[in-house]
Amino acid sequence: MIAEVLSTGDEVLLGDITDTNSSFLCRRLKEAGIAVGGITAVGDDVNVISHAIETIAARADICLVTGGLGPTRDDLTAEACAEASGAPLERNDVALASMTAYFEKRGWGKNLSRVNEKQAWLPKGAGVLENHNGTAPGFDITIGNCRFFFMPGVPSEMRLMFTGQVKPRLLELTGETGEITVERLMVFGLPESVVGEKLEGFYTRFPEFSLGFRARFPMIEVKLVARQEDGPDINAAKDWVSEQLGRKVISSRGLTLAQETGRLLTEAGQTLSVAESCTGGLIASLITDVAGASEYFLFSATTYANSAKMNILKVSRKTLEDNGAVHELTAQEMAEGARKAGGSDWAVSTTGIAGPTGGTGEKPVGTVCIGVAGPDGASARRFVLDTGDRGRNKLLFAATALEMLRRQLVK
Amino acid sequence: MIAEVLSTGDEVLLGDITDTNSSFLCRRLKEAGIAVGGITAVGDDVNVISHAIETIAARADICLVTGGLGPTRDDLTAEACAEASGAPLERNDVALASMTAYFEKRGWGKNLSRVNEKQAWLPKGAGVLENHNGTAPGFDITIGNCRFFFMPGVPSEMRLMFTGQVKPRLLELTGETGEITVERLMVFGLPESVVGEKLEGFYTRFPEFSLGFRARFPMIEVKLVARQEDGPDINAAKDWVSEQLGRKVISSRGLTLAQETGRLLTEAGQTLSVAESCTGGLIASLITDVAGASEYFLFSATTYANSAKMNILKVSRKTLEDNGAVHELTAQEMAEGARKAGGSDWAVSTTGIAGPTGGTGEKPVGTVCIGVAGPDGASARRFVLDTGDRGRNKLLFAATALEMLRRQLVK
Repeated sequence: MIAEVLSTGDEVLLGDITDTNSSFLCRRLKEAGIAVGGITAVGDDVNVISHAIETIAARADICLVTGGLGPTRDDLTAEACAEASGAPLERNDVALASMTAYFEKRGWGKNLSRVNEKQAWLPKGAGVLENHNGTAPGFDITIGNCRFFFMPGVPSEMRLMFTGQVKPRLLELTGETGEITVERLMVFGLPESVVGEKLEGFYTRFPEFSLGFRARFPMIEVKLVARQEDGPDINAAKDWVSEQLGRKVISSRGLTLAQETGRLLTEAGQTLSVAESCTGGLIASLITDVAGASEYFLFSATTYANSAKMNILKVSRKTLEDNGAVHELTAQEMAEGARKAGGSDWAVSTTGIAGPTGGTGEKPVGTVCIGVAGPDGASARRFVLDTGDRGRNKLLFAATALEMLRRQLVK
Repeated sequence: MIAEVLSTGDEVLLGDITDTNSSFLCRRLKEAGIAVGGITAVGDDVNVISHAIETIAARADICLVTGGLGPTRDDLTAEACAEASGAPLERNDVALASMTAYFEKRGWGKNLSRVNEKQAWLPKGAGVLENHNGTAPGFDITIGNCRFFFMPGVPSEMRLMFTGQVKPRLLELTGETGEITVERLMVFGLPESVVGEKLEGFYTRFPEFSLGFRARFPMIEVKLVARQEDGPDINAAKDWVSEQLGRKVISSRGLTLAQETGRLLTEAGQTLSVAESCTGGLIASLITDVAGASEYFLFSATTYANSAKMNILKVSRKTLEDNGAVHELTAQEMAEGARKAGGSDWAVSTTGIAGPTGGTGEKPVGTVCIGVAGPDGASARRFVLDTGDRGRNKLLFAATALEMLRRQLVK
């Protein structure tokens, strides 16, 4: 069974937005065990859309279409489908009822304007897909040997409609239960090509599972999917992956570094403070992105200026004068100072050079010193990690700091 | 003149990556004044790629292709092009020389493995496009009435090759100089639909310019492009846009809030400290993303726990007990405390509820109090801004805080 994905709408062709709808649908199709033959994006032109529908109908079994279901003049997808299928547009009372119910739910009254009523005119014979998150009902229709599903272009509406309305219908077509088991491992410290090499043996050992990688810089998410209910145990596959990647697996539950560190601190009933310089608040931001961080996260100081390092974190003037802001000793004193100022069990610190300026021969761009202070004392290490991009350097420094903390927490 | 964009490679069809190459190329084509007829993505299959090339050759004037130029077995684009064009693959000495030079530059020696040498086998008659950032040379070739440009799939390599090699050749085709004038305005506080409505009159008033919007949540970037050298002055168009949007334009140079705030502080020779709670370090992170922030940014405290608000920022216990952490008075004391602790001219603070939990009837999710402290005193305001998503709420809180500071700085 082969599926294709079709995006309709000028905004993708103008480069104003990137086609995240199509990549979402491709991932879902992959999870449903359906191969994707191609993705096409066309503009708001009835003839072009109609031609694309006809062409795909002649070669695919399934087609997922997004966009062009709105109330304006540029929304031409239903009309294009009518042209391609030969099934004329007619007012669909199920669609109309669905839209009216949505309007009432939003408090807009029962009176659909003529502009909105257009959205209930669907090709004869189409089945309605309810939209619980917007005004445009979707629809499905068979053209030739291809089953088409038409969804709105607004990502949140499309995703909800796919999950609630399209996915069950797809599973009827494939005969699968749709029960899938997904295991995720989060990996840090290896490039994707090396992860791929280390896991090359997977496909022959575990043919019943599918393996995928997604870059979530600076992590790599390794995803295992099992689609058979009575197939082999996915944990054997997961354990094998863990073995191949060793210490680079920071979470076998697919948690991010911030989530995993938070989990370990919560389990231990311990608290954390952070002292940042070059990462500029990013570590604190990543930690507090995790709901429930208030259980363990007390305080972070971003001490950009040396005066702040001394005043807030009590880094000694001598340390700064002798070694400079970017030094293991400075990082260690920052961590100790944050731990004390916050009154926490643990503290981690960063001080370094994210670039593009500020590097020297002795301390090039990418130099970062990371300190960890805990119940048993404090230590610090220096790294040189330059990706060539300031923002990515900050992310990499932050991740390295959290990893250094995590390794202390799992001891 | 109509162009199409073709992506080759399984990873897009698997949904592992989103097709940012195509959206980049669409934006560049738009800037070059070339309309895009469609985008297609196909997998690593010689026949499918060849068929796509043939189909596009029959209907477009220009085609930009990415992917499939690497050294592995899955890299089939050159072969597919040979099939579609009828021009057989042959060893291209210009390509070989270009690759050898790149290998030497990287210190890999002159000895190309047989695997890499495959990358110098191009269709007979193809012109070489040098790759200064990777091993795969690109190439261009005419098939029928369509000029094809083949580029690598790695985004950084593709962008460099496009800018340095493809764009000049496109301009030869269109006869334009490629001189474009681009003006950007950054807008905050209006949804895109309202911005669109307010600027509806643009197209009739300024037909020589193109107007585009890009969502950069929570900002909207309005972009004006003029392609004619001797056309009307773009500043008249820019001024008109500014007038329609009024106070919502935070920068008429397209600077982000963090950049604009930094610019104003640098101009005034003033410094800034920040006190954050619910934004968790995000404000500091946004400020320090701007190179040169060390000129004005001294210090940020993320005081997640009330103990930290008292110990570090000297917020009074009474204020916290009487009003709670999320209150105008707390925000004001946080700002005053950060200003004092950092020894800066200005300070801004946030305390609120980003969600999804933590809201109450009186203080629902989205409640945020923002304080600003400066040479003339301190003040604070309360807002309720809920996007339904924790991460987006944090971004919106941070932007609102920087905007409140910016308005003080421009007085």
